[in-house]
Amino acid sequence: MPSDIEIAQSATLQPIQAIAESIGLGAADIVPFGHHKAKVPLDVARSRGGAPGALVLVTGVNPTAAGEGKSTVSVGLADAFKLRERNPVLCLREPSLGPIFGIKGGAAGGGWSQVVPMEEINLHFTGDFHAISSAHALLAAMLDNHLYRPNSLDIDPTAITWPRAVDMNDRALRSIVVGLGGRTGGVPRQDGFVITAASEIMAIFCLADGLEDLEARLGRIIVGYSRDGEPITAAQLDAVGAMTVLLKDAINPNLVQTLGGTPAFVHGGPFANIAHGCNSLAATRAGLALGDVVVTEAGFGADLGAEKFFDIKCRFGGLEPAAAVVVATVRALKMNGGVAKDALGSEDVAAVRAGAVNLQAHVENVRRFGVPPVVAINRFTSDTPAEIEAVTAACREIGATAVVADPWGGGGEGCLDLADAVQSVIDSGEADYRPLYPTEGSLVSKLETVAREIYGADGVDVAPAAATEIERLERIGLRDVPVCIAKTQYSFSDDPTLLGRPSGFRITVREVTPSAGAGFVVAKTGAVMTMPGLAARPAAVGMEVVDGAVRGLF
Amino acid sequence: MPSDIEIAQSATLQPIQAIAESIGLGAADIVPFGHHKAKVPLDVARSRGGAPGALVLVTGVNPTAAGEGKSTVSVGLADAFKLRERNPVLCLREPSLGPIFGIKGGAAGGGWSQVVPMEEINLHFTGDFHAISSAHALLAAMLDNHLYRPNSLDIDPTAITWPRAVDMNDRALRSIVVGLGGRTGGVPRQDGFVITAASEIMAIFCLADGLEDLEARLGRIIVGYSRDGEPITAAQLDAVGAMTVLLKDAINPNLVQTLGGTPAFVHGGPFANIAHGCNSLAATRAGLALGDVVVTEAGFGADLGAEKFFDIKCRFGGLEPAAAVVVATVRALKMNGGVAKDALGSEDVAAVRAGAVNLQAHVENVRRFGVPPVVAINRFTSDTPAEIEAVTAACREIGATAVVADPWGGGGEGCLDLADAVQSVIDSGEADYRPLYPTEGSLVSKLETVAREIYGADGVDVAPAAATEIERLERIGLRDVPVCIAKTQYSFSDDPTLLGRPSGFRITVREVTPSAGAGFVVAKTGAVMTMPGLAARPAAVGMEVVDGAVRGLF
Repeated sequence: MPSDIEIAQSATLQPIQAIAESIGLGAADIVPFGHHKAKVPLDVARSRGGAPGALVLVTGVNPTAAGEGKSTVSVGLADAFKLRERNPVLCLREPSLGPIFGIKGGAAGGGWSQVVPMEEINLHFTGDFHAISSAHALLAAMLDNHLYRPNSLDIDPTAITWPRAVDMNDRALRSIVVGLGGRTGGVPRQDGFVITAASEIMAIFCLADGLEDLEARLGRIIVGYSRDGEPITAAQLDAVGAMTVLLKDAINPNLVQTLGGTPAFVHGGPFANIAHGCNSLAATRAGLALGDVVVTEAGFGADLGAEKFFDIKCRFGGLEPAAAVVVATVRALKMNGGVAKDALGSEDVAAVRAGAVNLQAHVENVRRFGVPPVVAINRFTSDTPAEIEAVTAACREIGATAVVADPWGGGGEGCLDLADAVQSVIDSGEADYRPLYPTEGSLVSKLETVAREIYGADGVDVAPAAATEIERLERIGLRDVPVCIAKTQYSFSDDPTLLGRPSGFRITVREVTPSAGAGFVVAKTGAVMTMPGLAARPAAVGMEVVDGAVRGLF
Repeated sequence: MPSDIEIAQSATLQPIQAIAESIGLGAADIVPFGHHKAKVPLDVARSRGGAPGALVLVTGVNPTAAGEGKSTVSVGLADAFKLRERNPVLCLREPSLGPIFGIKGGAAGGGWSQVVPMEEINLHFTGDFHAISSAHALLAAMLDNHLYRPNSLDIDPTAITWPRAVDMNDRALRSIVVGLGGRTGGVPRQDGFVITAASEIMAIFCLADGLEDLEARLGRIIVGYSRDGEPITAAQLDAVGAMTVLLKDAINPNLVQTLGGTPAFVHGGPFANIAHGCNSLAATRAGLALGDVVVTEAGFGADLGAEKFFDIKCRFGGLEPAAAVVVATVRALKMNGGVAKDALGSEDVAAVRAGAVNLQAHVENVRRFGVPPVVAINRFTSDTPAEIEAVTAACREIGATAVVADPWGGGGEGCLDLADAVQSVIDSGEADYRPLYPTEGSLVSKLETVAREIYGADGVDVAPAAATEIERLERIGLRDVPVCIAKTQYSFSDDPTLLGRPSGFRITVREVTPSAGAGFVVAKTGAVMTMPGLAARPAAVGMEVVDGAVRGLF
């Protein structure tokens, strides 16, 4: 089997104009970036299309270290819908540069299910992350410039909450002191960088309903507090017009293609812990306007990704998903059943059965949002028939359809059964989406609802500092908003070692922070890494350009 | 008179394919970025063209606070050559984001002599600065990652010379401490950010002769020293392949157009103090291959910009300039003649005459490189006929042709006389370019040569710390390289208040730093600002997006 980049680079791509044409867009409707990428202006996408397409979310079980292949299943599923002539559009997140050089390599699917041009998507793409980094940097510079000047807003230098951001894994920037060097060097204070995917601007970018809404949301960003404890916003720093100037082109969705020639919007890439972890609402809306079936993905497992997709993105965007695909792998269920990573190669049906409780819980959770699930068993070559039957049986127990899919080895052809199963669910019309909780209500009540109903916890404990912050946030107008819980992706609980379907545990909220521009409050249940580090041997070490082509990017 | 952005936005632009076609490039030869920008791959430009075009440098007198309009003259001159059907190509630097939000607004010419689309060129353009910022950040992260790991290269954390870089005016990042936050936060050490235009990668990017040379130059970057004083390079950190991956598309020149429809390569933007201050060699070469006359510009006055253009860029690139335009304004000569800024509105022929010694010195300096000069008097509405005659007379005294040009108000039409005068010089064939000094020789001898012959100084004093560093650099292989002097742009001397044509002064070299990848040694004659700050009311405050268009960017 060739590597992902070998497959991607050997593919013959269609001109992006042909991809655009397949969804009714002419050459003048798109803004080309090279021959295989384009931006579709928001107003073009909005002005097209009749009835919106059917929205299909791809989510998964609690992931393991290897990843369960949600992106790969998403691409394969979209390509299968294309083979079935269902006029699909795929919507995915954009990769972040930092992790590509750090440890993980590319993030555009894998094997015969990839979005292409793979290396361009993984590198600078159309510059959206750079635009977000610039807007973030401008706000940071204007904040410190205000402090350095007479500080007419009376900002407390010890109460600044706006970090700096860069799209790189750089642990040395996590905790820093800025403003040194004497009288002309600014005001000394503690600071730190987050990676761009963790910038609140990324979350805003992915939820904004057009440029005006973008500007309004940017204006509501809380950058810190005055000495008398009042929030200071980006609007008060007069930074918002210029930030919008920096983002005005980036906000337009990026159109590329899959290896199967399916149109794909790859746009926006917020973290799935301190943010909501889905591609931009603008891209999903464009897909729904231009396609008949839209396949999209949420980050991490369904406890985090699907919950936020439903409770944040669908709520804010007025989206009505028609179906959800829950991706499971035999490997992941075995690990959830107690098998160590290095023993995954041997058949262990009992472990699969034991771990399948994790899958069952996610399937039941998806149903709580009124969205009918289909389980996709993402096949690995080491899976045995008995192991796959164990997964299927576990799904039967709870009345769920499970279908084996092979997007990695088979592309769209490998996902035809899955597409047919999803199509049945769409056609059934049984979807009746509803968020888990109303926005009205105390923050703690909403945290309790998610913890009990989705995680299976006995309740929520709030650390004293977090309780104080909750009081403040509710006082300053951030009570009737959704909550965004940052939690380990490996467990339903906040303890990454509690696999399967744990019970008898409580969730501890340690820190609460506002994302007032995005429109939610983030509750952190542990130390959340918003600036990753590089590995001992970073992935960057193996990369090079040979005869103009990228090598070593996987 | 409408503002620059109003003029630019009201222009009807040709599709970039039509501009490309005018210099013999087909649609498949270029990589479009939207409808009015494209990249021209290096190998496409190299494979075209017969005899190289004539290279014309636009330089100027010592600038004043208002700027003397070198970019505007460059655009107008190129458009005048177009009116004369001379198949011109314009080559300019790319603007940096930081100053645009800081104080200065756009940097793409002015009035009726601009490169367009003005706001796109001034904002993210084709992402070159972002690519350079990313490559810079990757090297910084890999350096700190190496320190954090066993540090097998035995890098001295107190002897790291590789800063961090961001394309923003942010004084709070000038001097910082990184690596705080305990055991997982890296190694604490002093650090600081420069603006991306000051990154050595920018200088390398602008001198690299293709991707292989780029990679070799990146590898030679000195990031710091080991505990036993040996230089540590980027190659030793295994960062170079991945940095080249990040830069492989950026290195291709960007093609846009002037308001007069002249093809313009706008590519690369190094500082003119700690670097050489011209657009990329790749772009200039592409222009020479595709056009019959290439108009290009060097930063600051001719003492800094032209000297580096000749001694660094032309030397490294094997370029043979045919003519040089020395831009002067009546205002600048008056200031050089002792008039205060707020008195410039009144006629003062005596002051013009007194200040014209500055212009005479620059004209004579250009001749030292074997390049014939033409003086362009860039007309302002407040100039009087007697003042202009005083400039012309000063030029006559030294046998130089002076021509009044009005690129701002008249575009190419306003520069026809200038184009004709330059054409005469080109046709005369009198150009016989030679660098001022051979690369072989001690660093101090080269500093002396530039200081005496170009600045008119009596000699160079080297501060003790700089002398020690010169010894080290010569020992580690940086003796037989050009010198790049960072000096105030306002005076021939290192004292910004000594205007006109000062004499009886010495130049003091306070600090010397290697740019081993770029291939020169930087000598700083005073505190050089490599990270600007924002103004009290940053230009960003007035910017906004209205109906999708940028407002407030000048």
